[in-house]
Order: sequence, then structure tokens, then C-alpha cells
Amino acid sequence: MKRTDISPRRLRAGLAGRRRRKSRRADIGASPALIITPNDATDTRIRLLKYGPDSVTEMQDADAFCKATDGLRWIDISGLKDQDRISDICAKLNLHSLTVADLFHTDQRPKTEISADYVQITLRMPVGGPPFDADQLTVILGHDVVLSVREQSRESFAPVRKRLHDGGTHIRESSGYLAYALIDLAIDSYFPIIERYGDITESLEEHILTEPQDGVIREIHLLKRELLDLRHALWPLREAVNALVRDDVPHIGEKLRPYLRDCADHAFQLLDMVEVYREVAQGLVDLHLSSLSHRMNEVMKVLTIIATIFIPMTFIAGLYGMNFDRASPYNLPELGWRYGYIYAVGLMATSSTAMLFMFWRMGWIFGKSGVKPKQR
Amino acid sequence: MKRTDISPRRLRAGLAGRRRRKSRRADIGASPALIITPNDATDTRIRLLKYGPDSVTEMQDADAFCKATDGLRWIDISGLKDQDRISDICAKLNLHSLTVADLFHTDQRPKTEISADYVQITLRMPVGGPPFDADQLTVILGHDVVLSVREQSRESFAPVRKRLHDGGTHIRESSGYLAYALIDLAIDSYFPIIERYGDITESLEEHILTEPQDGVIREIHLLKRELLDLRHALWPLREAVNALVRDDVPHIGEKLRPYLRDCADHAFQLLDMVEVYREVAQGLVDLHLSSLSHRMNEVMKVLTIIATIFIPMTFIAGLYGMNFDRASPYNLPELGWRYGYIYAVGLMATSSTAMLFMFWRMGWIFGKSGVKPKQR
Amino acid sequence: MKRTDISPRRLRAGLAGRRRRKSRRADIGASPALIITPNDATDTRIRLLKYGPDSVTEMQDADAFCKATDGLRWIDISGLKDQDRISDICAKLNLHSLTVADLFHTDQRPKTEISADYVQITLRMPVGGPPFDADQLTVILGHDVVLSVREQSRESFAPVRKRLHDGGTHIRESSGYLAYALIDLAIDSYFPIIERYGDITESLEEHILTEPQDGVIREIHLLKRELLDLRHALWPLREAVNALVRDDVPHIGEKLRPYLRDCADHAFQLLDMVEVYREVAQGLVDLHLSSLSHRMNEVMKVLTIIATIFIPMTFIAGLYGMNFDRASPYNLPELGWRYGYIYAVGLMATSSTAMLFMFWRMGWIFGKSGVKPKQR
Amino acid sequence: MKRTDISPRRLRAGLAGRRRRKSRRADIGASPALIITPNDATDTRIRLLKYGPDSVTEMQDADAFCKATDGLRWIDISGLKDQDRISDICAKLNLHSLTVADLFHTDQRPKTEISADYVQITLRMPVGGPPFDADQLTVILGHDVVLSVREQSRESFAPVRKRLHDGGTHIRESSGYLAYALIDLAIDSYFPIIERYGDITESLEEHILTEPQDGVIREIHLLKRELLDLRHALWPLREAVNALVRDDVPHIGEKLRPYLRDCADHAFQLLDMVEVYREVAQGLVDLHLSSLSHRMNEVMKVLTIIATIFIPMTFIAGLYGMNFDRASPYNLPELGWRYGYIYAVGLMATSSTAMLFMFWRMGWIFGKSGVKPKQR
Amino acid sequence: MKRTDISPRRLRAGLAGRRRRKSRRADIGASPALIITPNDATDTRIRLLKYGPDSVTEMQDADAFCKATDGLRWIDISGLKDQDRISDICAKLNLHSLTVADLFHTDQRPKTEISADYVQITLRMPVGGPPFDADQLTVILGHDVVLSVREQSRESFAPVRKRLHDGGTHIRESSGYLAYALIDLAIDSYFPIIERYGDITESLEEHILTEPQDGVIREIHLLKRELLDLRHALWPLREAVNALVRDDVPHIGEKLRPYLRDCADHAFQLLDMVEVYREVAQGLVDLHLSSLSHRMNEVMKVLTIIATIFIPMTFIAGLYGMNFDRASPYNLPELGWRYGYIYAVGLMATSSTAMLFMFWRMGWIFGKSGVKPKQR
Repeated sequence: MKRTDISPRRLRAGLAGRRRRKSRRADIGASPALIITPNDATDTRIRLLKYGPDSVTEMQDADAFCKATDGLRWIDISGLKDQDRISDICAKLNLHSLTVADLFHTDQRPKTEISADYVQITLRMPVGGPPFDADQLTVILGHDVVLSVREQSRESFAPVRKRLHDGGTHIRESSGYLAYALIDLAIDSYFPIIERYGDITESLEEHILTEPQDGVIREIHLLKRELLDLRHALWPLREAVNALVRDDVPHIGEKLRPYLRDCADHAFQLLDMVEVYREVAQGLVDLHLSSLSHRMNEVMKVLTIIATIFIPMTFIAGLYGMNFDRASPYNLPELGWRYGYIYAVGLMATSSTAMLFMFWRMGWIFGKSGVKPKQR
Repeated sequence: MKRTDISPRRLRAGLAGRRRRKSRRADIGASPALIITPNDATDTRIRLLKYGPDSVTEMQDADAFCKATDGLRWIDISGLKDQDRISDICAKLNLHSLTVADLFHTDQRPKTEISADYVQITLRMPVGGPPFDADQLTVILGHDVVLSVREQSRESFAPVRKRLHDGGTHIRESSGYLAYALIDLAIDSYFPIIERYGDITESLEEHILTEPQDGVIREIHLLKRELLDLRHALWPLREAVNALVRDDVPHIGEKLRPYLRDCADHAFQLLDMVEVYREVAQGLVDLHLSSLSHRMNEVMKVLTIIATIFIPMTFIAGLYGMNFDRASPYNLPELGWRYGYIYAVGLMATSSTAMLFMFWRMGWIFGKSGVKPKQR
Repeated sequence: MKRTDISPRRLRAGLAGRRRRKSRRADIGASPALIITPNDATDTRIRLLKYGPDSVTEMQDADAFCKATDGLRWIDISGLKDQDRISDICAKLNLHSLTVADLFHTDQRPKTEISADYVQITLRMPVGGPPFDADQLTVILGHDVVLSVREQSRESFAPVRKRLHDGGTHIRESSGYLAYALIDLAIDSYFPIIERYGDITESLEEHILTEPQDGVIREIHLLKRELLDLRHALWPLREAVNALVRDDVPHIGEKLRPYLRDCADHAFQLLDMVEVYREVAQGLVDLHLSSLSHRMNEVMKVLTIIATIFIPMTFIAGLYGMNFDRASPYNLPELGWRYGYIYAVGLMATSSTAMLFMFWRMGWIFGKSGVKPKQR
Repeated sequence: MKRTDISPRRLRAGLAGRRRRKSRRADIGASPALIITPNDATDTRIRLLKYGPDSVTEMQDADAFCKATDGLRWIDISGLKDQDRISDICAKLNLHSLTVADLFHTDQRPKTEISADYVQITLRMPVGGPPFDADQLTVILGHDVVLSVREQSRESFAPVRKRLHDGGTHIRESSGYLAYALIDLAIDSYFPIIERYGDITESLEEHILTEPQDGVIREIHLLKRELLDLRHALWPLREAVNALVRDDVPHIGEKLRPYLRDCADHAFQLLDMVEVYREVAQGLVDLHLSSLSHRMNEVMKVLTIIATIFIPMTFIAGLYGMNFDRASPYNLPELGWRYGYIYAVGLMATSSTAMLFMFWRMGWIFGKSGVKPKQR
Repeated sequence: MKRTDISPRRLRAGLAGRRRRKSRRADIGASPALIITPNDATDTRIRLLKYGPDSVTEMQDADAFCKATDGLRWIDISGLKDQDRISDICAKLNLHSLTVADLFHTDQRPKTEISADYVQITLRMPVGGPPFDADQLTVILGHDVVLSVREQSRESFAPVRKRLHDGGTHIRESSGYLAYALIDLAIDSYFPIIERYGDITESLEEHILTEPQDGVIREIHLLKRELLDLRHALWPLREAVNALVRDDVPHIGEKLRPYLRDCADHAFQLLDMVEVYREVAQGLVDLHLSSLSHRMNEVMKVLTIIATIFIPMTFIAGLYGMNFDRASPYNLPELGWRYGYIYAVGLMATSSTAMLFMFWRMGWIFGKSGVKPKQR
């Protein structure tokens, strides 16, 4: 997950590609336990891992695996296409029909459901970005079993599997610790993406401060939308993790509490970061509007200066272009002067110099702001 | 409820048709139990369904039906015109006079009222839209009876009736489950309408980003109003459903809790969606104002460029249109030059080229922004 | 309270007449029990009603009335001028000196004070409007007595008196029910006034959307102020009524609870309505600013179009008005052409046609927006 | 404290004189009990009052006074210069070293500290204004003693001393009641100053609505700052007073509760008032920006009208000022017409009339807004 | 920490130098106890202080020091480079592996972790600024030991060490008091930096009010960012300190509570100050936008006045420059008048005087605002 090889320009370009996640509530009025496999479901991959303090074994026979009573077990499912096999495993683990349906409703709000037998934690785990996207991860924590169901087939749990194989620390001690490791991984996955938005925010900020362009407002708007999505993803996530810490949750012992609190702290920190970027992005809107106003002022100043200098001069030229009958000595006597032309040009030069002096006094030209504009 | 056959333009056109729901508080100071049939009440349709684990029977005799003590019963009333029959049924079910009055006050805030004998849940159920409109649904849950009273005569409970006839799942098990099924249906009915507002929001967003037009602010304003109405409809709804989960509510057993929590989660999710669209809509206002400013800048730039190029040229033309007496060699000698005209035209060309060069340097024309405008 | 006979224009005109209610804290450092009759106190009118399940009697002798131990009693006072008589009655009812002082401090924040012997509910009851104004109503609920003290002499309790005389429902059953009826009347009195503000809001909204005028911002500002006042009147009102429902309040039995909850629901609903109108009014400010910007754009466009068409034409006219010596064949040969004038006019026509075409391409004129303005 | 003799203009002028209260945290890392006398400490004045139901005696001997065990005592200190005497008295009363240090840290946040022996209430009491300023008042309530320490030497407790001398009511009954009287006085002192800000707000409002001037934004900004300071002064004050009501506070009996609740109500009301003025002041910013935009529109309209009328006329004048060779019949034949001049003037009149008619149609002049500007 | 020697200009210049603190979450999916020494870790300096009521000894042998059971001990570590020695000491103190890892994760959110054996308080302590920067300080409070670990090697605890050596007050009494002294120092370190931001805010405010410049918006934006960072640093800090006061924390006796409450009060006060500056900074944005608008108005007014005066005059000049055939008595008879020129100049003077009068009436020039612009 190297961050430095992605230029801010490319990051920002990514903003444009966002797509709205369509909710799949086509089943209004249907039984809540009805399972509807999502249209974009990917192939199902199931990993069955049996582990204890001393060993980790990958098994193939789901039937035997689910019935086993010795050791701890981790069922790692990703991809929802093979609905039957997943339902079958859930049935063997005696999951509530609502829990099973939740696995397939991939647009859930993050939540923690605590029942007598197991704890269900539904999260969203970010996938790449920008644009921000996240797929659903459900972790079900039983007495000696952990079931993790990920919406898309992705190899995102490799670090946890490696730690499990390596042993050490507490990861082989209890099902609770494994569940914690998965949740921790899911939450920490938000850090790189949020930092990328931080980079985008700073890049936009620098852009506006040094070289304001009109189109930048679009990028700010898209950034704000992304951050809004992130905020609405993280807010319930934080609540869900907090519920694990606060309440008396089965299968989560006193020993695990500090770890989950650490997890909750990370969720808080993520939300903090998003809030900061959101506020900065809002500030950028003000900055941009101010910069538009500033440029308008500049444009108007140029127009005003040019117009104000030349309009009186043109008037004088027009004056001496009049065709009054020179027979009368009162009509345009200047036209007959020996130095009339020089006099007229001098008049024009005087008027424009006076104007330029006035503009200089008002601080409009030559960077001088000595005399402040009146403001009562 | 196909969404795709409604074009964003038509959706947005729907915004204009909204009507304010007039409150009907004509009875200030009257007894709270006074029943006032709404003016726009529709014909009353009553369905009496008696059901148990094995059978579902539709009955006609309200009297016998209300007195029955065996099996579970669902009284499904829609349309409030026939006040007498409705009151009569309520009396047979021993409902509190305030509860009965609530059925006919069709502008209630969603709420949950818990009494010793029954639970009263008052909701609003959306009807089509945009523009958003919702009519009142009151679900009264007794020990073995469910009374649902809908303000308008609509066939919206067909899916639940079907599930009841089909049997299966838990729907014939308790009156609580049937009440849950009705509430769930009412809440899920909000998803399509909110998604339509999502479509409108995105359509407006795209519109502003690609082809800004001045009138779009009206549509944003109307959208914001609609979303405001939705928010104020959903906020108390969420509270009302939450009250069912949180408190120790009669006729709602432990087994029903997860279902109601699911319901409450949906209400939360709806509110989340509305909040996101509301914030996006507010961002669109900024975007629109910025786009107006941008266009103003463009217009002013054109004016400034044209004026600045031609004003000096016109001045030069005026200069050589003066009628000074050519007898003096000091008066307008250029007029007598052999190449005077070419000289004058050259002067004009020089001044306008200088201006164009300056504008190009300031990044105003030809898309060049090389030299940034000064900004201290 | 007919609403329809008041035109929106007249309603809005009413906004201008608002007056700030001056606080009367002239007694800084004085004893809190000091009674200060307000300067604008109106004549005191006292009604003594003794009632029971079977009868309602209006009495004249305050002394005997206060000492009576049989039946329920309602002392209805309006107007605060006769401080002695009011104090005298309060003394007979053994009210706390702070309670008595509160009756005369007519700028109280709505509140509920619960003491061992009685409950004091201080509310504000709207009087007409717009502009919004409200006078103070204190309801004191004892075991068998209700004391209602209204700041101004108004016949606002007539509906309750009528219901009391009519009997029926629960109004003659307990002192609590009578107090509830009074509070309910006070709260419901807010509905017509808030609906009038709703009418004003919609009238302003329509006004801005169809025919924007600059002065409308004043009306929006005044409307916002009124709604702000309403919000600050309703917020503590809601709390005060909620306190009656929530806490274990003497003289308010279990049977009365649903009625008071209904009351609290109305207060919530009122606040909801005010919040909606407040947000709409704030949206109108954006709309108005956008409309001002829009009109500015329109004005600038007209100026730019006119100026850009005529400036080059005027330049050409000026060009051929120069007086170069025609003796040289290089000086303004066009002037000598046979069709010189036609050529010049053609040049002008060409330049202005080119400009018009350019403006049409930029979508500024003839309603054509085919080619979008560049936006980087 | 007459309010009427201060003109709004003078009140507003006062806004400019505000000074920032510098925090005096020069003692970072020092012991929290270290006493640092403020630089601007004023002379110390100590009043020792011994009182009971029947008598009030002013004593001089602090030593004997502090040791006295009969009767109630009030030690009224103002001015902090004489640190030794104050520390000495505190030592005799067995105050905690932190409490003593708090007396001299004159930039405390209002708070209530409850220890086993006494209650410490730290408040800020406003002094004159605008600009708003407040000095610190600490009230320490022991079993039979009240210690009040005011930062500056001011005679602000005269009304309480008078009530104590007068006797009557409850003021001589308990130390708690005296402490209440002092706190009540401190809180009520905010009313006149907040009302003055109300006057300023209304004066600014009226100013903007009737005669908008650009400089008014400065005054609004200063007003907002003042109200911000007031809000941050009142918010913790309300909490501090609420803590006295809510918690089980020593030396505050059940009988005193209603009085303190009254106090807390006043603090709430003050905060309410400040919030209203703050919101109005924010609305004034919108109003002012809108008024600036409006004036810009007016200016631009004038420019556009003048320019648009005269530019075509000037063009026509220029046209007939061209010097085409009249030998050709095709060159400017109008110049030779008998009524050529009248024709030219007519042409000009026609063009300007057409323009004026167009502007009138667009509602720009003569107050006619009949035909609305297009808005898509 | 002298404040006065830093000029506001230099303070504000400091704003530009801020750097984003990069989060170091490179360990996604790794064990939470994994220790990663930060890249920019500075050399480790360890001070071992053993103290009791009578003596303070600085020891060198960490091994013996950690095992000692008599007296109180303070281990003061700064700089994280020597990971082994720090881990070694932590191991001797039996710290949880998460606690040890927290010492090295230098981007923690401030928090209080309470375990059975010790309390861990993680804070951020500001270092100089602006721009604001803070490094991490972890204080671990055991029964008779305090461990303080600071991210960077800085001599910031000198005042506490001095007080410890000096004895007096309570600092040698308990480990809790020492921990309090360290936390108090860390919190009070925020006062100077926040006051500097106060100075910057006021300097910017004054700048905008007296001499508005366009670039100032950049400084406001940077100031807002800094204050945002400060707010997000202080918010969790306040919570962390509050947790120490609220909960029943081991090793923090009843006697220490008032001191920690004082600490929490300071944290509240800091947050209050930041909130005030934030709101003022936001107000400055409005002020700046208004000032830009105001200047635009001024520029436009100048343009309008100049253009409106000269355009009619130029028209008149153009009129009498027409070449109509003077043979006809109807063509430009004025040209033949004896005083034609004077008449023309008079006409021009009249038109410009009329214009100036109109502008004066509209309050645009000569500071006269007598006749208000119409505002409907």
C-alpha cells in the first residue's frame, strides 16, 4: 500500500469516477429472512481453519468442521454467489435466520447484534479508492468459532492468516481474539484511504492558494461528497465497535477489552480525521468564492482604469471635431490657435495623469495601498 | 415499483407539484377525545382476518369477530369516511378514547403509545412521489389482535396478506409478528422514494457540473424542501420504532426483538440517506453560486477585453478627426503626412496588440494561466 | 379564527409591526418575593367556579370559596392590576411567596415548578399575530383547586368553561383534568399562528420563485426573527410540559398521563413546524442572493452585448471621420470610393453580426445554451 | 441603571472600546496553590457583618470575627491587593489552598466546587458596558459563614446589605439564603447589559433595513464578538448555578431549592436572550451582504441604462461625421437631405426610446416589474 | 516564554510553515503489540528519581531502581530511539504489551486507560508554534511509581523537577500528585500557544477592519486550520482528564480530586478559548467577503460616475461633428450660431451637472446619503 507513487493529480482524477451504491430494497413487504443474492455477487471461496495453541490446520470437509467440538475454528467466506453452501454452513452453526439474511443484504448499516449464542458484527471494509468504495464484512463470534463473511472475493485477511500460522501473541488463544484481529484489520484499512483524501485536500488547498482556477470548485464538491460518504460509513462503525466495548458481550472476556478499546480509539481517530478534512474542504469553498470575487475585482479595476483614462480623452477629441462655424470668433477659437493641437493633447495628458494619480491614491494601481478606501 | 422508467427530468418536474398538508386544528379548546372526520376522508374498507398456525379465514361479521377469543385476529381498516363503524370496532376492542381520536387526527407526529392493554404505533407511510406525500397508518397491537387503520384506501398491505395466507416463517405465530410485518412494510416503503430523491440529487449535481443554468437553483430549493419534509417525517418515526425495541413493551416478546431492531436499523439508514442528500443539496447551492460568479467573471472579461481594445483605437480615430486649423504647422501635422493614415492604423494595431498581450499574460484569454494574478 | 380571510400580503405587512417585549428587571438585588405590578397591567377579572360530577356553580365570595373543602374549584384570574385581591387569594391558598411573585413577573421563561402541595406551570399563550406576541399564563394545580392567572384580560378560556358547564367526558372528574384542559388550550392556540407563518413563508417562497424583488430580503429577515421568537417560546414550553409527563407529579394520576403525553406531542409538533419554516426561510435567503446574482448577470449581459456591438461600429465611424490629407493616395482611400459608404456600413454590419453570432454560440442570447461556457 | 439616557449611537460607539482580557498563566509548572496577585489588583476593602434573626452588627476585629461561633457571619472582601489579610482570613476559615489560589486567579471559568465543609461558587459579574467586561466574584458558603470575594473594589452589594439591615423575608435566616442573595444579584446584573446589546442589535437592524451603509458590517462584527464573549461567560455560569440545584449540596436545604431554581431559570433566560441576539446578528450579516449586492445592482443598472441609450446615439453621430467623398451619390446621401439632421436626430430618439421601452419592459426603470425577467 | 517579543506579523508568518503530521499506520493487520520505532525518533534520555517526604535521589541503575520497594519513584524518559532500554523498563514495571506499544505509536488520540494495576494517560504537549505542533506524552501512574515517556527529547519537566527537589506542598506525598503535576504542566503549556493564536486573530481582525487586503483570506484560512487542529487536539484531551476525575481511578485518592478537577477546568477553558477564536475567524471570512464586495461597489461607482458624465458629453460633441449639408437651414443650424460653441459647451455642462446632482441625491458621492436608495 505505497502511497507516494500516486500523484495528487491522479488521486484527484479518481474523484470523478465515483459511483453511487444502489440499495437493493426490491423486497418490500417480503419476509425479513428472505435471502436475495446480490446481482453482482462474486464466486464464493471458503476457507476452514482449525487452530489451537499448538497447531493450525486447514480443513476441506465443511460438515465435519462445523460439528467439531475440539479446538477453535475460523470459517472464512468471501464472495456470495454460492448461496446454498453459505446457508448450509450458517444452518450448521445454528444462526438466526435474520443473521443469515443480513449476510446477503450487502448494504447494511454497520451494527453489532448480540444474541445469547453469538455476536454478529457487520462492518464495511474499504476497497481501494478514491473514489471511496467499501464492501460488507460480517464477523460472527461464537464460543469456539469465528465466521467471517466478506461480500467480495478479496485476499484481504492474509496478514491475519499469517499471524495465525506464525502463532505467538494471543491470536491462537480464543475465538474473541481472532474476531478482534479481523475487526482491527477492517478498521485500520481505512487509514490509507483517509490519508489519501488528506493528500487530495492539501493538494486542492495549495492549488487554490497559489493558482486559483475556476474549475477547482468541482473537485472540492466531489471531495466533500466523498468525505460525506466516509463520515456516514465511519459513524455507525464507531458505534458498532463501541457496543462491543461497552456492553457485557458474550465470548469477549475482560482480557480482550483493552484490545477492543484500542480498536474503538482507532475508529474515533478516523472519524476525527474525516471531520477535519470536511471542515477544511468547506473552508476551501469560502476561499474559492473569495478568490472569484478577487479576480472579478481585478478585472473590473482594469476596465475602470482603461475606461476612465480614455473616455475623457476621447471626449476632448470629439470636442475639437465639432464643425461649428468658425466665422464666429466664439466658436471653437482653440481650433485656430497656433499651438491648439499641442494644447488639446496637453489637456488630454493632464486629464489622464489626474486619473492615474487618483487611482494610485486609492491604492488601485502600482501596489500602493497607502490611502485606505473610506469605510465608515 | 420500477424506478428506471422515470426520467430524472420527469422526477424533477414532480418537485413542483408539492402541496402543503394543512393541519386540521380547528378544534382548539375542544375535548381531546372529540372525533373529527377529515374532509378528504375516503371510503372505509374493512377486512377481518382470523388466523392461526393452520388457517386463515376472512370474516364478515365484525361483531362476532371482535368478541372471538380463539385464534389471532387482524382488523385491516383503510379510509376514514365511515366513522361510526370504525368507532364501533374500537369500542369493541376497548380502546382508549384518545387512541380512537388519534385515528382520525391524520396529521399526527409518528409516536408509540404504550398502555397496559395494547400498544399504539402511529406512523406515516409514503404514497408515491415526488412530490413526497405520506398518509397516516396506526397499528394497534393487543394480546391476540392487530388493528391497522390507514388514512386512505390503498391496497398497500397485499404483500403481508399474501405472506399470511402462504403461512411459513413466523407470521402466523403471534400478533406481535404481524404488527412487525406491517411496520416493516411501512418503513421499507420509504426506500424507493428516498432513492428517487437520490436520483434527482445526482441529476441536479451532474446538471450543475456540466451545464450550469440559472433556473436550477429553484429545483435545488424545492429538493431541499422535500428532503426537509422527509427528515421531519423520519426523525419521529425512528424514535417511535426505537421505543418498541428499548422499552419493555407488552405483547412484544424477546423473540421479536431482533426483528424490531432490524426495523429500527432500516429507519436509521433512511435517515442517514436523507441527511447525505440534504448535505449534498446544500453543497449544490454553493456550487451554483460559484457558477454564477464564474459566469459573471466570463461576461465581464469579454466586456473588458472588447472595451479595452477598442476604446484606445476609437480615441486615436477621434484624435485625427479634430478640426484644428492646419495653417499652423503645429496643428495635427500627422494629417498631412503621406503615410499618415497607415501610421494611424499602425498606432491602433499596436495599442490593441499590446492590450491583447497583456490580457494573455494575465491568463484571461487563450486558456493560458501561466502568469498568476497577484494575490498578496 | 378563520384563516382564509387574511391575504398573505396583509399577513406579511403584519411582520413590520412587531415590538420587542421589554424585560422588567428593574429590581436587581431586591428580594425575590417582591411583587412588582407591570406598568401595562390590565383590569383584574376573577371568576370562581365550584364544580363536581353533577354541578357547576359560579360563586362571588372569594373568602368562602377558598376555604371550601367540598367539591373541586377553579379560580380564573385575568389581568394583574388588582394586586391586592390576587395576593389575598394566593395567601388563602397557601402559595409560596416565589410562586406569587412569578404571577406578576410577566416575562418568565415557561417552566414547571413542583412543590409538595401544588404544581405551578408557567406558560405563554399567543395573542393574535403576526407579529407574534404572547402573554403569560400560570396554572397552579392543587389537590382540589386549579388557579389560572392570565396576564391580560382576555376571554380565551370560554371553550373550557363551556365544556365544564356541559359536563361529559372527564372534565369534572379531577382538578388535574381541568389543568390539563387549560394547558392543552394554551398549546393548541399556537397552531393557528404557526400556520399563518407557514402561509407567509410559502407566500414569500412563491414570490421569490416567480417574481424576485430586492426588498423581499427585509420580509425574510423579519419572518426569521418572528420564527426565532416562536422557537424560543416553544422550546421551554415543551420542556415544561414534558416535566409534567416524566416526573412523578402530585395531583396528576396515571389516568391523566396519556392526555398530557398528547399535549407534549403537540408541543413537539409545533416545534417541528417552526424548525421547518426556519430552515425554509434560511433557504430563501440563499435563493434571494442567487436571484440578485442572476439579475446582475442579466444586466451585465445586456450591457456587454450592447457595448460589444456598438463599440466596434463606432470605431469604424470614427476611423472614416479622420481628417487625413486626401492629397496622398495612401490616406483613407476608402473615402474616395464610389461605394465607400456602403462598404463602411457593410463592415459595421459584419462586425456586429460576428459579435451576435459569438454571443449566440456562448448561449447568452436567444435562449440557446447549446455550447457550454468553458469551465476548467 | 437607567437605560433610556444612552442613545443607540453611543451604545454602539462603546463596542469599539473592548479590550481583550489577558490570561495570566505565567506560572506554568508552578504549584497550583501558588498565589499570584494580579497586576491590576485594587485596594482591599473588608466588611465583617455578624447577623442573626434580630440584629446585624458590623465588626472590625477579623480575628475575633472568624473565631465567633454564635450567629451568622458575612465577610465581604473586594479588591485583591492586600493578599496577606485575605490569605489570613482564608486560613482562619480553614479553606483549601486551591480555593484560596482561585480567589486570586481572576480569569477562572465560572464553576461550583463542593467540598465537605463548604461550597465554593466562582462567578463573573458584569461591570458596565458595552464593551462587555466582567470581574470575578467568589462566594464561599460555610455552615454559618459566607465569604464573598470580589476582584475589584465596587459597591455592588449595597442592595443585599440594605435588605440584611432591613431584615424581613428570609435573608437573616441562614448563610445559604445570603449566598443565594449574592448569586442572584450577580446573575441579575447581566440583564441590563444584555438588554443594551438588544438595543444595539435592534438599532443596527433598523439601520440596515432603512439606510444601508457599508461600514455597518464592522459594527455587526464587533457586536457578534461581544455576544460571543457573553455567551462564553454565561454558559459555564448556568452550569455552575445548576450544580447548586441538582446536586446534594451542603448548607443548601430543601427550603432554599426553589430560590436557587429561580436563579438557574434566570441564567437560562439570559443565555436564551444572548442566543437570540447572536442569531439576529448573524442574520444581519446576510442582510448586509444582500444590501451590498442590491446596491451593486442599482449602480450597474444606472450604468447600463446610460450606456445603452447613449452608445447607439453616439454611433449615429459618428456615422454622419464620416468624411466619405460626397461626389458619389452612394456616399452618405443623408448628409445632403434637406431634413437630414432632423432625420438623424429622429433616428437617435427612436433608438433611445426603444431602449427605454425595453428597460421598462424588463422592470428596470419606473418601478414597473410587470414583465418578469426570464428565469429558466 | 515571553510573548511580547514576537510581533503579530512574525506570528502570522509562522502560520505558513505548518506541516501535516503523517500518521504511521504502516502495520495494518500486524499484531497490536508490535512496536515500531518512529523514523524521526530522537535519542533516549532516562532520568530515575527516587523520592520520599524527606529526600530526592537521582539513581543510575535502572534494574535496582525498578525493583526497589521503598519510597516513591519517577522514571522520566524522553526520546524514543533506544527502544530496547524503554521496553526493558516497561517489562520490569509489568506493563501490558498494548501500553508499551502505545508509547511508540506517537500519533495516538489523547486517552485515559485504566487497568487494575496502573493508569495510563496519553496526552499531546505543544512544542512552540505557530505553527502548532505537539508531541506525545504518556504518563503511567502506578502505586508507588510514575513513568513519563515523552516522544521528543525536551527539557520540559524542569519546573516539576525543581518543585520535587524543593519539596514543600504535596509533591513528595504520593505518586498521584506527581502524575497530576506532570499532566497539569502539559495542559498549561497550551495557554501560551493559544494566546498567540488569540494575538494573531486580533491582528488579522484589526487588519481587515482598518486596511482590507485581498491576500488576508489566505491567512484567515491558515489560522482556521491551525485552530481546527488545536480543537481536535484539545477535545479528547479534555475527555481524558475528565475520565480521571469522574471514574473511580486507582492510585488517585479523594485528596487529589480537587487538583484534577482544577486541571479539567483548565482543559475546558482552553477549549472555550479555541472555540471563541474559531468563531471569530469564521466571522472574519464574512467580513472579508463583505469588504471585497464593498470595494467592488466603490470601483463600479467610479466607473459609473465617469462613464455617465462623459458619455452624454461625448455624444453632444459627436452630434456637432456630423457633416450634414449646411445648405439646408434645417441641418444643424446650431453650427451657424454665433454662440453655438458656447451653447454646446453649456449643454454638456448642464448634462454633467444634472448627472452629478443625481448621483449626489442617490448618496453615491460627497458622503451624502440623505436620500435613500429605493428598496421595495
